[in-house]
Amino acid sequence: MTRNPDLATALPEASIAISQVMIDEYASLSGDFNPIHVDPSAAAATPFGGTIAHGCIPMEPIFRGVQALLGQPVLPAGSGMNLRYHRPSRPGDIITLERVPSEEPDPGRIGFTCRNQKGEIVIDGVFLIDARAG
Amino acid sequence: MTRNPDLATALPEASIAISQVMIDEYASLSGDFNPIHVDPSAAAATPFGGTIAHGCIPMEPIFRGVQALLGQPVLPAGSGMNLRYHRPSRPGDIITLERVPSEEPDPGRIGFTCRNQKGEIVIDGVFLIDARAG
Repeated sequence: MTRNPDLATALPEASIAISQVMIDEYASLSGDFNPIHVDPSAAAATPFGGTIAHGCIPMEPIFRGVQALLGQPVLPAGSGMNLRYHRPSRPGDIITLERVPSEEPDPGRIGFTCRNQKGEIVIDGVFLIDARAG
Repeated sequence: MTRNPDLATALPEASIAISQVMIDEYASLSGDFNPIHVDPSAAAATPFGGTIAHGCIPMEPIFRGVQALLGQPVLPAGSGMNLRYHRPSRPGDIITLERVPSEEPDPGRIGFTCRNQKGEIVIDGVFLIDARAG
């Protein structure tokens, strides 16, 4: 496949500001109404100390940033990603995608982190433009 | 970490039925109003032939199924997944998570596919209970 060498160095910044309203809306559309997401008093009594976002919500900047980088409205068929979840996201958090430069740049691999407004890593990983290539 | 040997063989089925209303709601909460998702006439004129769901939507059964398997309401910190996107999901699609047994079962690795109602693979991958383990 033709690869754009700019992919090795650029990644449009993308952010999402998480609110309880957003979490409640995601609960409605997904059907996942677990109290850890939608019940602030019940969630306050857990080790999390409050509600946390569903796992897809802090991923949204990955989709947005990678799609902008590729100039496509959706992820291409055959693409993929390797993700690791470090900590939950909460109402009030602003999650921002950043490029992680690799020491051995491969334009087919786009390393990234999603950090919250405290600079803590929420998700990190690698986007693979052609995941079939291994 | 303590691992449950049942993880090697079981994966609760989880499904999501995708509708245009769901896609429109996801556009509102994510801010991604690309016509390929929310404008049926514009999307009909593209190679996709109609609207398609945002990338997070067909992932929801992964979160639901893995969380049910682990008996936790959220993905644990340090967990991760390696995903590959095969084809888009559309309004009317029902996406169902299935376990993919491995020839060399490792209870820390949960292979899965998300298939649509035609049996086509939409997403496949591996969930890693401890992604730090490699």
